[in-house]
Amino acid sequence: MNPVNVGLLGLGTVGGGTLNVLVRNAEEISRRLGREIKVVAAAAREYDPEGLDGIDQVRVSNDAADVISDPDIHIVVELIGGYSPAREFVLEALANGKHVVTANKALIAMHGEELFAAAREAGVTLAYEAAVAGGIPILKAIREGLAGNRIEWVAGIINGTGNFILTEMRDKGRDFADVLKEAQELGYAEADPTFDVEGIDAAHKLAILASLSFGMPLHFEKTYTEGITKIEPRDVTYASELGYNIKHLGIARNTDEGVELRVHPTLVPKGRLIANVDGVMNAVLIKGDMVGPTLYYGAGAGSLPTASAVVADIIDVARSIDHIDTAVPCQGYQDGKIEDLPVLPIEEITTSFYLRMYARDIAGVMAEVSSLLAEAGISIEAMHQYESHTEDGCVPLVMLTHRVKEQVMNETIARIEALETIKGEVARIRMEHLD
Amino acid sequence: MNPVNVGLLGLGTVGGGTLNVLVRNAEEISRRLGREIKVVAAAAREYDPEGLDGIDQVRVSNDAADVISDPDIHIVVELIGGYSPAREFVLEALANGKHVVTANKALIAMHGEELFAAAREAGVTLAYEAAVAGGIPILKAIREGLAGNRIEWVAGIINGTGNFILTEMRDKGRDFADVLKEAQELGYAEADPTFDVEGIDAAHKLAILASLSFGMPLHFEKTYTEGITKIEPRDVTYASELGYNIKHLGIARNTDEGVELRVHPTLVPKGRLIANVDGVMNAVLIKGDMVGPTLYYGAGAGSLPTASAVVADIIDVARSIDHIDTAVPCQGYQDGKIEDLPVLPIEEITTSFYLRMYARDIAGVMAEVSSLLAEAGISIEAMHQYESHTEDGCVPLVMLTHRVKEQVMNETIARIEALETIKGEVARIRMEHLD
Repeated sequence: MNPVNVGLLGLGTVGGGTLNVLVRNAEEISRRLGREIKVVAAAAREYDPEGLDGIDQVRVSNDAADVISDPDIHIVVELIGGYSPAREFVLEALANGKHVVTANKALIAMHGEELFAAAREAGVTLAYEAAVAGGIPILKAIREGLAGNRIEWVAGIINGTGNFILTEMRDKGRDFADVLKEAQELGYAEADPTFDVEGIDAAHKLAILASLSFGMPLHFEKTYTEGITKIEPRDVTYASELGYNIKHLGIARNTDEGVELRVHPTLVPKGRLIANVDGVMNAVLIKGDMVGPTLYYGAGAGSLPTASAVVADIIDVARSIDHIDTAVPCQGYQDGKIEDLPVLPIEEITTSFYLRMYARDIAGVMAEVSSLLAEAGISIEAMHQYESHTEDGCVPLVMLTHRVKEQVMNETIARIEALETIKGEVARIRMEHLD
Repeated sequence: MNPVNVGLLGLGTVGGGTLNVLVRNAEEISRRLGREIKVVAAAAREYDPEGLDGIDQVRVSNDAADVISDPDIHIVVELIGGYSPAREFVLEALANGKHVVTANKALIAMHGEELFAAAREAGVTLAYEAAVAGGIPILKAIREGLAGNRIEWVAGIINGTGNFILTEMRDKGRDFADVLKEAQELGYAEADPTFDVEGIDAAHKLAILASLSFGMPLHFEKTYTEGITKIEPRDVTYASELGYNIKHLGIARNTDEGVELRVHPTLVPKGRLIANVDGVMNAVLIKGDMVGPTLYYGAGAGSLPTASAVVADIIDVARSIDHIDTAVPCQGYQDGKIEDLPVLPIEEITTSFYLRMYARDIAGVMAEVSSLLAEAGISIEAMHQYESHTEDGCVPLVMLTHRVKEQVMNETIARIEALETIKGEVARIRMEHLD
């Protein structure tokens, strides 16, 4: 059979990795696929040929049109990232009848619906396994491996930078800013770390996971997003002493009232496997109604791991290239079967909470706080008063609550903060048992 | 589109579960597939209609031929287990032009090559996701999700019964026979537990994992298989104190010298995620050359979890039913591209070891044992002498070695056992760092 011809947009970290995987494992891939996959052209504004295997066999230009318009290219692989011009390039490639593979989570989360429609229109497919959790074949697991299930919820560590920071804070008692600086030096975090530490990157990925899990449109804009910048080392320590690790989770849950879509720091019991996923690694825990919980773990970023997912997509597309109707639909569900489920505002969501406050007079405070919680119907699972005093003689008081609606917790925290005996703000971190 | 018609062979735990998943999630499945999947017939010698959703819509007989020969049935699902008559039924179904889905690991491990050839001959496909690790979509991950990788090794907890027993032994200090009895009462272990506790079931699954990972034939008969029956509570305790959990692992590794295929109890550092997979749960850790390590976790058995995998296969087959050449080949590699790699005998395999022995006179023994190990070129990573004495005044001595060839370790252990100062046999458990 003739080779399947691939054109790359971008020769950076992931683009270069994709070329390397396709060249280094060409024989293995063709043993599996029964067909050669050949990178015939690439477009890159600038690139370093050093370390790019077989780059001399690739026609490289600085004009994306050279790839997108090449009639011999079957699959265009978009690896330039960002919204624009990635969106325009992908739309043009689809219009030209090319299948498209991309690793671009921001693009899919923001413009997915438009791009999927364009792919359907053109009778081609658009694959994006590498957009979520890097090398972990998580979209395939959801769309195919668990296709017999109604997915009840998904919870993932889907940003390696944030997980690295929280792991270092826990293991070494360091503070956020300090670890962030190191992450930037190590190349784990961007110079502008906002996307990672504020949870925007995770929210992009969560919107994609929810869409595929529940058969709903992409709702990045409705995703509640809270970063890890306010987590203090003492909270990490207190949580640990109580038997929990703090993880920056993306959580999507399909409930009778609507869909929860939220990214925030979360206390997870240490006994859960996902609580032990450390450093830059990613993991996604999925609850299917038939299979129960399953978990998928691996590298969430990096040149070759991300390229591994890109290449899996290329192989999938190549396998069904002559009968593209046999390919799994872009969103996992058939066109017309996507249902626009309501997304719950964060105030309507029910979780357990970790609360940490500073009390001026510990004896009286315990009674006052307890009675405010009781009035709101919030039961306390654990309460702990720490010996250590702050400079001004205040005592840290930590409690874990049972499940309560966010709105009720907001009102109750406001009442607690209004107490004369409480100093400053009450820190609150949501808690999930994931069972 | 017309429904895809399914016939079930067997209405037991997995057969009943498959019917239940297909009926309960019929709408969800058809939203994904774009086509209805309908169970039209089932064959079972005896069955209990209680708890079988939609069984009144299914034509049930006690004759497999009624399913296998029905011209309206597209997919035959074999869920009776065992070698015979499962093999004959599957061969006949394939010959009749039916696609076949099975959860039968013993059948695939022993007769897979014959069945795959029959499927190719008939131009149909044979899918067996549920044969390994129950509900975890592990075969799909290897054959498709990691298709861009050369798989270097696989290590799995692929027998839930064994993992339950080892977990209880560790957490409660109980001995093997005691926990096995409870596992039998709980229904986790069969009346004859040989397949589970001697590692035969795990070896069936490992042979399948290795075949798909390395593109080699099924070599169950060449798999080194060692059970967990000789593990003593004290070994579990000592290992834990040294920072390791004992897991019954199936390990397949593709080396330059040949393929390692081995099932045995293994010390794994507690920091590894797979060391924390407890109870009846399964997990498979896979090292791809590009993606690095990835791990897949979930229920390895049970009615609905196993059925989840069966149904995923049915959906996959249904998706490509009109163009079956777009389906992934049965063994993940194209016909003619399977390579018969040599399998290494256990004596040729190199691992680290945990050794436990009883010393009559501790001062002298340390020197004698150390010098025997040194003479064999085996370096010691850790040595620990325990305070507790056995009834006859012997002292337990535990050591961890660096990597050494099994053959050398066998000879050295024989020399240690010959020492006057050592009482009885030296217990030996292999150790893997899985990094």
